[in-house]
Amino acid sequence: MREFDLPPDEFRRYGHQLIDWVADYLAETRKFPVEPDTKPGTLIDALPKAAPEKGEPMECILADFEKFVVPAVNHWNHPRFHAYFSVSASGPGILGELLTATLNTNGMLWKSSPANTELEMTVMSWLRQWIGLPESFFGMIHDTASTATLHAIAAARAQTAPETRAQGAPRDLVVYTSIHAHSSVEKGALSLGVGQENVRKIGVDSEYRMRPDLLEAAIAADRRAGLRPCCVVSTTGTTSVTSVDPVAAVQKIASREGLWHHVDAAYGGTAAILDEYKWMLDGADEADSLVMNPHKWLFTPIDLSAFYCRKPEILKQAFSLVPPYLQTADDPRAVNLMDYGIPLGRRFRALKLWFVMRWFGREKVQQILREHIRWAKELGETIRRHPQFEVAAPIPLSLVVFRMKGSDQENRELVERFNATGYGFLAGSVLDGRYVLRLAIGNIATTREDVFGAWERLSSIAAHSI
Amino acid sequence: MREFDLPPDEFRRYGHQLIDWVADYLAETRKFPVEPDTKPGTLIDALPKAAPEKGEPMECILADFEKFVVPAVNHWNHPRFHAYFSVSASGPGILGELLTATLNTNGMLWKSSPANTELEMTVMSWLRQWIGLPESFFGMIHDTASTATLHAIAAARAQTAPETRAQGAPRDLVVYTSIHAHSSVEKGALSLGVGQENVRKIGVDSEYRMRPDLLEAAIAADRRAGLRPCCVVSTTGTTSVTSVDPVAAVQKIASREGLWHHVDAAYGGTAAILDEYKWMLDGADEADSLVMNPHKWLFTPIDLSAFYCRKPEILKQAFSLVPPYLQTADDPRAVNLMDYGIPLGRRFRALKLWFVMRWFGREKVQQILREHIRWAKELGETIRRHPQFEVAAPIPLSLVVFRMKGSDQENRELVERFNATGYGFLAGSVLDGRYVLRLAIGNIATTREDVFGAWERLSSIAAHSI
Repeated sequence: MREFDLPPDEFRRYGHQLIDWVADYLAETRKFPVEPDTKPGTLIDALPKAAPEKGEPMECILADFEKFVVPAVNHWNHPRFHAYFSVSASGPGILGELLTATLNTNGMLWKSSPANTELEMTVMSWLRQWIGLPESFFGMIHDTASTATLHAIAAARAQTAPETRAQGAPRDLVVYTSIHAHSSVEKGALSLGVGQENVRKIGVDSEYRMRPDLLEAAIAADRRAGLRPCCVVSTTGTTSVTSVDPVAAVQKIASREGLWHHVDAAYGGTAAILDEYKWMLDGADEADSLVMNPHKWLFTPIDLSAFYCRKPEILKQAFSLVPPYLQTADDPRAVNLMDYGIPLGRRFRALKLWFVMRWFGREKVQQILREHIRWAKELGETIRRHPQFEVAAPIPLSLVVFRMKGSDQENRELVERFNATGYGFLAGSVLDGRYVLRLAIGNIATTREDVFGAWERLSSIAAHSI
Repeated sequence: MREFDLPPDEFRRYGHQLIDWVADYLAETRKFPVEPDTKPGTLIDALPKAAPEKGEPMECILADFEKFVVPAVNHWNHPRFHAYFSVSASGPGILGELLTATLNTNGMLWKSSPANTELEMTVMSWLRQWIGLPESFFGMIHDTASTATLHAIAAARAQTAPETRAQGAPRDLVVYTSIHAHSSVEKGALSLGVGQENVRKIGVDSEYRMRPDLLEAAIAADRRAGLRPCCVVSTTGTTSVTSVDPVAAVQKIASREGLWHHVDAAYGGTAAILDEYKWMLDGADEADSLVMNPHKWLFTPIDLSAFYCRKPEILKQAFSLVPPYLQTADDPRAVNLMDYGIPLGRRFRALKLWFVMRWFGREKVQQILREHIRWAKELGETIRRHPQFEVAAPIPLSLVVFRMKGSDQENRELVERFNATGYGFLAGSVLDGRYVLRLAIGNIATTREDVFGAWERLSSIAAHSI
């Protein structure tokens, strides 16, 4: 009896049709140009200006999806999507999402769907063990690292200025991070009312790592000025160059100065699943919070960001607000995750990560991560040997930052011409005032041939442009 | 070539198997007890304490999903899930989610996936027309209404105190809403650093609607105290009783006093798709922002919240922050949605709403909404005629708030005993100091028989409990 909905036999028919489409897409993603050849407004102009009065058959919708939408997406799930950070919707992750959408549960309270909360706590514990954090960390899922980091800064604020909740944010709190930190730190701070002028961007060493001596000096200067140092955010795997801040040294300063220490391991944290990269999180066991994103390098469809916090009671103190229609009986094992943050509605995101961690297992995840890092280092060596190119930053993980010897404009044109081939997709950035290219490796389907095929085409375009 | 991922033939096999599972689930949801019979910790204790070292076969994972997860979820997609607000994952919405997970695109920038941005702008325009808002409203998608409302309050803050971005939040801003507003208003304000003491909860009339005279008086008192009235949030369809605040009267005050007016139409806004409910948003055309949730009453899987704003330039001024690796060429038609809010990563949520709006069309949506409202009113009449029960609040939409004549404890026990049958699921609340029951109608598969079947069982339990 689904009188109003897509009838079950139609759901079955189109569902099977779509599974075949998805299977073909995953098997043959390379046949699509990564970046679409489209101008702003093309899709908007192609679609009707208003929704239909009468419902349309599913086959028309699916046909339009292929005709209009697919040619206008940038194929993030393509093995040669090397821009930003390369992400993956793996097969197990996609199947998990299908079930999440079907059950459509909301895990705001334990009671509102016990499996949501308990599976979330389970996979957060599993992942915590993989990256080597101690049991003292409480784990929960957010949509993105921007949200997780905002919650960390809010907790820091509640620790330093507990009067904030009642009276509002004071204007004397200071947040510290490196000049290479992700923009989400600054955005979180300004959203929370900390103020951009109270965000200190600490300088880095020759390998783009935050300098503890400069952090100490900045804190001291702020104390002298009568301000309240509140929070420091270190990064393991910065977005610009994947540099790894000295977490232990930062932690020492944070402990001594009474600052909340949040570790942004959104991308790099995944590497800590490898024994040989555990050093990256040395000192993080004493930090106050940490974020790492399985939707980046752990083959989980977006969005799923893992947020760990050693002081969940401060999160609760900052955010808990229970209206009468959400009051439930107290039980220490019935955790209500809505109490620990801003979002009330909470999708059942844990399911896809459970699928991913179980289907791959730790060994296979380690094998894939090692390949990605190996290819990145190998590409770096190749670029270093090329007379026309230079590597612009160390390659600790799976991102290669490099440039053609020449002007910024020439490098910009190189990226544009490469992207226009549709073979692969890169994004540029600016490092030390110069335009650089970023080639990120991280998609589950990427092969060594993909990486070096992209490099060959890129260097060939460069050779012909002289 | 997917050396590391679930092989294409396995994806196909398990994908087809899951589509059959989903089709069966949708056709036979009623065979599941709505609320699980589970104690806190049961699922955690049943699952391994650590993730596997070696990957496991997909059939084991799917078997465990059925064995452990399904019996521990509260079936939000069940036609007799009447707690909180009743939501739906309709067939078209589920199929859309499958494609979103597969493409795995991130629409932070226009360039990062043009289809994401342009389909989002298209469906936001379609939905805007359905609920009767003018073209002057810029629409974008957030995860939940909590996030959308937080952004509205942040924009209000930027309008009244533009120095906030640089210097931090001042402590003299005041936010107004009714005592029946959703907790997200207060949570948004305290997250942003406005402070709980600066949130005024305005009293209501006998039908639980915000009283404009009390709002005016509160604003005047705050001005006399040297504070800065900044934002008012009215609600069309409060969570407790679905009361509808007088939006036009509030708007008049907001305009005169220079306050940002945000309309929380998260649930009730959907009713404005009906001509006979357009009055609910009278005055909203001059408001500054509005949120309505297709994931509540518009058959779209969670999460998808539509946020409309008449002053997007203020959002941009409050939130835009573009790091070098995300700089793109300026083009007025290439909108970068990350500039208008906190989240950077943005799932391709528009796709499922496009599927829903096209497959149902306006006429069918109207037909379903009218049925839900009709059944709610009919149930209200039935309850009014029953000697043992009373209706506790007017029924403007599809929520019935009622109680058994008797003590709070008896009503609590009634809900618990009803939920324990597994037949349906209700949640209680507190209204005017008394425990009340809420029966929400809104799931796509709900029939009149479901609603009255639940009522019959409930009243029968009540009769036998005397």
